[in-house]
Amino acid sequence: MTINFQLEAPCPIALLLELVGDRWSPLIIRDAFYGVRRFDGFQQHLGISRKVLTMRLNALVQAEILKRERYQVKPDRYEYRLTIKGRELFPVLLTMMRWGNRWLVPAGQETVQLLHIGCGEKIEPKLVCSHCDEPISAADTRTMPGPGAGLEVVQAFRQIVRKSEHKPDM
Amino acid sequence: MTINFQLEAPCPIALLLELVGDRWSPLIIRDAFYGVRRFDGFQQHLGISRKVLTMRLNALVQAEILKRERYQVKPDRYEYRLTIKGRELFPVLLTMMRWGNRWLVPAGQETVQLLHIGCGEKIEPKLVCSHCDEPISAADTRTMPGPGAGLEVVQAFRQIVRKSEHKPDM
Repeated sequence: MTINFQLEAPCPIALLLELVGDRWSPLIIRDAFYGVRRFDGFQQHLGISRKVLTMRLNALVQAEILKRERYQVKPDRYEYRLTIKGRELFPVLLTMMRWGNRWLVPAGQETVQLLHIGCGEKIEPKLVCSHCDEPISAADTRTMPGPGAGLEVVQAFRQIVRKSEHKPDM
Repeated sequence: MTINFQLEAPCPIALLLELVGDRWSPLIIRDAFYGVRRFDGFQQHLGISRKVLTMRLNALVQAEILKRERYQVKPDRYEYRLTIKGRELFPVLLTMMRWGNRWLVPAGQETVQLLHIGCGEKIEPKLVCSHCDEPISAADTRTMPGPGAGLEVVQAFRQIVRKSEHKPDM
């Protein structure tokens, strides 16, 4: 019998993709981090149709990633700002930027670079362990069923590990 | 005049989304990290149609994120493994997992958790500065045009910053 891991107990990555797993949402969120706030700003910056942009912005507000705030009355005008939930997507965008810069752009030809205000240097984001502060990679970490995983998920994990001819990469 | 930042000099995030910005690719890559290697394994685990899976796997091989290797002859059978380029997507998946666990799952009900083999603890991934090792966030970093950004991109950046009523978040 095949156990569908996603259906039995949702994977947090799959849940995230349900909210922002389309082509535009990550770019809208990126632009919000750049300081874009208004409908026309997103529209001009992304070259996206007004209809699609309206749908995406509404979905991001619904998901509580953006909040819609009125900045003018008569006529009413609104702007979109990141919520705390939205701002915490920063590490996802930053690791995407890092990978794109490293693998999809010629070396030395990066179009975007990151400045750390704290130390004043041009930097890369680095992923470390919250406990021992050592850098972490796929090779020295394992994912395991968490407290919310039912028996089916635990079995699905075991099944995958058993089926692999090699030890899992993550 | 509106400058389309993406078209003038591609953003590394937009470039990444062109390769893996669909709903299935991140889950296929996630499963590859879990140790899934074979077509039937992906198909059963994801509950995805064989046609869509074939398209996605081919695209990921084309993008050099997965490599296709023969593990049996007569009949020939192949498996899919992460390349180095693919393995370096680990930080992206891990930050996605972290966000999903934090915002989309009830606290204490996480279905997946991360073990750091090095220190033996259940951990969270933490993003720090490659120069000074301090944790980084949107508030204490800025993105800037990189060496590969043409004049148009530099102007587009200035235009966005000028238009924002508030300082940019990133």
